[in-house]
Formats: sequence, structure tokens, C-alpha cells
Amino acid sequence: MHLSTIRATTIDGATTTRAVRVDGDRVLDLGASDLGDFLSDPHWRQRAESPDLVELDLAADSLDFAPLVPRPAKIVCVGLNYRNHILEMGRELPQFPTLFAKYPEALIGPRDELALPDNSDAVDWEAELAVVIGSTVRRADEATAADAIAGFGVLNDVTTRDWQYRSPEWLQGKTFEATTPFGPWLVTPDELDGGVRPRLELSCAVDGETVQKADTGDLVFDPVALVAYVSQILTLRPGDVIATGTPGGVGHARQPARYLRAGEVLTTQIAGLGQCVNPVTAPPTTQAPA
Amino acid sequence: MHLSTIRATTIDGATTTRAVRVDGDRVLDLGASDLGDFLSDPHWRQRAESPDLVELDLAADSLDFAPLVPRPAKIVCVGLNYRNHILEMGRELPQFPTLFAKYPEALIGPRDELALPDNSDAVDWEAELAVVIGSTVRRADEATAADAIAGFGVLNDVTTRDWQYRSPEWLQGKTFEATTPFGPWLVTPDELDGGVRPRLELSCAVDGETVQKADTGDLVFDPVALVAYVSQILTLRPGDVIATGTPGGVGHARQPARYLRAGEVLTTQIAGLGQCVNPVTAPPTTQAPA
Repeated sequence: MHLSTIRATTIDGATTTRAVRVDGDRVLDLGASDLGDFLSDPHWRQRAESPDLVELDLAADSLDFAPLVPRPAKIVCVGLNYRNHILEMGRELPQFPTLFAKYPEALIGPRDELALPDNSDAVDWEAELAVVIGSTVRRADEATAADAIAGFGVLNDVTTRDWQYRSPEWLQGKTFEATTPFGPWLVTPDELDGGVRPRLELSCAVDGETVQKADTGDLVFDPVALVAYVSQILTLRPGDVIATGTPGGVGHARQPARYLRAGEVLTTQIAGLGQCVNPVTAPPTTQAPA
Repeated sequence: MHLSTIRATTIDGATTTRAVRVDGDRVLDLGASDLGDFLSDPHWRQRAESPDLVELDLAADSLDFAPLVPRPAKIVCVGLNYRNHILEMGRELPQFPTLFAKYPEALIGPRDELALPDNSDAVDWEAELAVVIGSTVRRADEATAADAIAGFGVLNDVTTRDWQYRSPEWLQGKTFEATTPFGPWLVTPDELDGGVRPRLELSCAVDGETVQKADTGDLVFDPVALVAYVSQILTLRPGDVIATGTPGGVGHARQPARYLRAGEVLTTQIAGLGQCVNPVTAPPTTQAPA
């Protein structure tokens, strides 16, 4: 199944969101305001597969996608997690995952403009496989962790490198307002090569030039291991998101470093999961001076 | 004003929470399920001061406090931020604050038991002044940042040191389920020496032995500066929390290191803001093996 959160306009002109299932060219209403809300129903799988879903009068090829889960209660991000990239840098494989956070304000939709913040000169890309949680789990064993994965989506952990390295902790460079593309679909594991441990080609392109390319099967800590690990620390709940880390090829590691510029297009793609295509724009004029 | 979130039992026996104002021995209903919900009303100050609040039939000295804000959308924590402690360690004062995150699952009330996780051997204390946000701010100047501070509370950023140092990023040691005392009151700045930059004695005691003691006026980045700084990155909203960092005296820095043990009592206190008194207990038997 392909599930999404889309933007819609109400009768009185307000913008709202809606959880939908996209089945070929049909757009089916899931009866919830967004995917986070929808997944909080323990019977969401059954509801999503119901033959009684109401079809919306929308063209599947021109949906206005919101962030896949617009307001996750938790976004857990993973650091260096691609085996080839770690080994090529001469490092040893880590014993434990590196975890950091991102707040929901960072998220944008998969077709939204990515407006460069006017207080950073170093906005960089990080294409990632995102795991969306579909049930409440704590101290999960492998089987329970696998069952807790609702599906996968595409996320770009766009990072302001200048802020990331202002202090030992990365958070401030990882959570700039409206800079993290996330979408367009949650694809359930049954549709993916590798299932809950998907083996899919992930890539990132800037203006059509491929800058990152990897296989999601190359993760040191795969999605099931990550769900199990995080659940040793605290409870994971429906709609929570784990961003599984990025492979080599980020702009900051280049000689000279390369960062996103206004006018470029950032394309983040995972085979089978679709793509985020975000035009990079100058800072909005509504931003007050920093 | 002293505002709190308390636990209450509904007519049908369910446990719920309620935002209240405590005025001497009177407990006044604020008409909201918790303080986060209450602060999201732009007119919260006016409502809290209304003479029409309904008095609840509860004893002010035996309230069952929930975490002050039970589910903040963001908890932003600050690293090394006490001037004396930084200088005594021979370090230079930092140019920028060190920021990291904690998730709401970590929070417990100010009188709750602190059950030691059975998968950590190094649970440590970090007494902190917490800032609670009272309005929506983005790219705030100093005056706007000051106005956005609803008030202050006591928080102990209890840390599993073994997990904190498993990777370069501290998150996993900072967000263990149900380990961070937070409460009992949000005290508005007008009642505090120093106002929005409070100068209050902060202390932490284990079984009555003082292990940390500092003045909150010694912060390198004071509450107003922190609100302004974080709002350069993303929008702060009502109910968001900034934990401003801890002074010297943590157990991990001792020779030999000292960590919390079952049977001890952890007391976190800030003059004028009250105290969290949390009995430390063995892991609950309901925890499955890690």
C-alpha cells in the first residue's frame, strides 16, 4: 500500500490535511487528518485495506503532498550508518548507533520549496531511508520490532553545517525550520525488496547530478535493529519516525565543499518509495533579519 | 503566580490531568487538561488572573503533581552553561550554546518514584532551571524573547552516563523513559529575583547530602538569550521547554564515580521554584529483560 498525507482546501477556503491511500490512479480517503493520526488507530492496516474507503475526486498524479507525517511526536535520527562509507573512511564499524533528534518544525513536503535560511551559508543534503512506526513498542524483540514498522518513506536530513559544528552536539544544525523534505508515500514492507530490511537504491541529486548513491541494504543498523534499540530507551509510538542515516557524498566532505544554492533542485529518491523533488529558493522576504 | 499540572481521578475512576493555579491554600481550576494546553491560549495570563476561577476541593499541600508540562512538543536541553564550572575545569567560555534534545516520554512528576532502568549502571543527576515558553516566537529579539517566557520550573536532567557516551551524540543517555523529574510549579517571572533572568539558588541533594549548588544567575547563556538563540533556528511554541544546563557536582565526575541507587531520595531544588523529591527505586518488575 501507498499511504500519504495530502493538503486539501476546506469549503471555507482554509488549508487542512488529509490521510489518503493512493491505489493506482485512485485516491482513497482514510478518514483521518494525517498519517500520524491514522496510524494511532490499532486497526489502521485493516482500515487502509477496507473496500469501503471513499474515493476522492483528486488526480493521483497532481496531489499536494504535506510532510508524510506532519507532526511526529519523535523524530530519531541516526548518524554514520552506511557500512561502505564508514569503511572507506578508514573507521571501524560502530558497536552502537549514534542517535540525535530533529523537531517536527523542520519538516516540509516532498514537492515544497526548500527556502535557504538567511542565517546559514552551509546548507547540505543527506538522503535517508525513513522508518515510520505503526504500533506502540517498548523493549521490543526482533519480531515485535519488525511488526512495529508501518512502512518506509524518503527523507532528506538537510543540515546547516555551520550550525551543526558550533558545538559538540549536532541538534542545532539538524532542525532548522522547514528544511527537511519528507514524503511522498509511506510504502508498506510487503511491497519492498527485503521487506522490513529493504534493499533499495537510494540516491540524491542536485540539479540532476547524482551526488549520493547507496543501497539501503548496506545499513550497519537496519530498521528492525534500530526499532529494537530505540525501544530499549523509551516507548516508540505510532507516527514516530526514525531517519536511518546517510551514505557518503555529502557536500561538506567535498574539496572544495559544496552547499545548496538558490535556483537548484534537490532530488532525493529511493527505488520503490518515490522521490522528493524540492526547488531550492532564496530566503523568504518574510524572514526578519537574524 | 504558581501554575501546575496535577493528576485527578474522574467520576468513572480514570486518571486524568488538570491545569491549576495554586494560590496559597486555594487550588483553582484553569479549565485545561494540562499546562501545555493552557499556555496555548494566547490569553492565558488573563485567564489565570481571572477572579472567576472555580476553586477545587483539594488540599494545596497534598496535590498529586504530573510533570509540569506533561507532553512538550519540544524539550531543548543545554550543555555546559554554568560559568564557574566551565572556568574551574580550565575551559574557555563557549561562543554558542550546546543544544541537545529530550523526548517527553522521559518526564515524571516532581514526587514520582524514579525507577532505575535495569539496562543502565550509571544513572546520574543534573539539577537544572527549566524555562517554559508562553507564546509563539520566531527570530525573537531580546524583548520578544523575554515576553515569550511564561515562567520557570525545576527539572533534573537525569542521565544514563553509560548510554550517553556510547556515541558522540548524547541523546540516548538523556531520554530514558520516566527518569526526568519536572515540576512542581511554573512560577511567573514577576515573582522571582532577577525576573526573566532569575538569580536563584539551585541545588541537588542525594539522601540529604548536597551534591550540586549554584546560582542560576551564573548561566553563560541566560533564559532570554537561549529563547532568542533557539528561535533563530525554529519556531518556539507555548508549552515548549528549555532546560538550561547543570552546574558542577554530577556523580560521573567524582573519583570514584557515584550513581543513583535504589532506596536513595533525589531532591532537586531552586529557591522560589520549589523542589522535586523523587524516591529512587529498583527497576519495576513489569520491565521485560533488555
